[in-house]
Amino acid sequence: MKKSIGSKTIAFPAPVFIIGTYCEDGRPNAMNVAWGGICGSCPPAIAISVRKQRCTYDNIMRTNAFTVNIPSGEFVKEADYFGIVSGKKADKFQATGLTAVKGDKVNAPFIKEFPLNIECKVIGIHEIGEHTQFVGEIMDIKVDQDCLDEDGTPDISKVDPMIYDTAASTYNSVGKMLAKAFLIGKEFAK
Amino acid sequence: MKKSIGSKTIAFPAPVFIIGTYCEDGRPNAMNVAWGGICGSCPPAIAISVRKQRCTYDNIMRTNAFTVNIPSGEFVKEADYFGIVSGKKADKFQATGLTAVKGDKVNAPFIKEFPLNIECKVIGIHEIGEHTQFVGEIMDIKVDQDCLDEDGTPDISKVDPMIYDTAASTYNSVGKMLAKAFLIGKEFAK
Repeated sequence: MKKSIGSKTIAFPAPVFIIGTYCEDGRPNAMNVAWGGICGSCPPAIAISVRKQRCTYDNIMRTNAFTVNIPSGEFVKEADYFGIVSGKKADKFQATGLTAVKGDKVNAPFIKEFPLNIECKVIGIHEIGEHTQFVGEIMDIKVDQDCLDEDGTPDISKVDPMIYDTAASTYNSVGKMLAKAFLIGKEFAK
Repeated sequence: MKKSIGSKTIAFPAPVFIIGTYCEDGRPNAMNVAWGGICGSCPPAIAISVRKQRCTYDNIMRTNAFTVNIPSGEFVKEADYFGIVSGKKADKFQATGLTAVKGDKVNAPFIKEFPLNIECKVIGIHEIGEHTQFVGEIMDIKVDQDCLDEDGTPDISKVDPMIYDTAASTYNSVGKMLAKAFLIGKEFAK
């Protein structure tokens, strides 16, 4: 039996993306964004939605650049802090002790301690109600070498990303592998 | 030590969204989409990216409506099948035995057996390279009653959604809860 719960921002899973940008004075900033995801393949592109009052909004509008940093579960406190406090009021890198490194493809900082960092150049800006969606072309991905598998591909179990539960407002880990895509479903195609 | 792996569509986690639409002849179709996510709060909105050659593209352009259906892990075979075969060539509901139910808010079918169904009306269409991004205003969410917690909120452990690993092309389950958001990070704000 289904129950209608109305119009809400509930969909599973949501990501935990930490967005790196530079403020006007050159200070690095980081913000926690759950509204986003890959949005195109050719060119590879990722979308994030940000409200206009955010420091990150001003920074992206000025620099046309951002990074998406994927924290491992061990950084859950830092990731959450990046979503609680505004970059207009605090130096979040100083508060957490994390390290901002200037991207080599775009004018935005990535977070050294997080295992996967995506450098993005803005190629689209869309107004969606109170949010502005920035579409970033993925210019490069940097991965901690000990998070790569033998083929040089990021290993999700080593990266240990978090997922955000939009209903309960909790962070969860990624669980066990269930099946290989483009394979397990073939039996219905017979 | 970081290794640069170039421009790829790798970000963790990606969702497993099964998109429900009606074909021109009234037949329901379902497609597996990993490029998407919540993209706005006011109004609640969700984005999905689809290539133009897909049956789903034609259907959404004609109806201005779609559903996002969240399969539980037990439906991994069906979910994968929806991404392997085109609705132009097969009746995917007939093949899988799943049930299409007409939405009561929009002209699109939802999948009865999947625990969480989101009815969407198109409010934005964006071209992003080879993909078209449809922004859907969330008109209603329907949830299996046994997947709700005491407060009437969808319980992620009961919904048991999958995540898609964009690097290894595998489906994974959601793991353990790590922390409460807007809380665990407060210690850095002191």
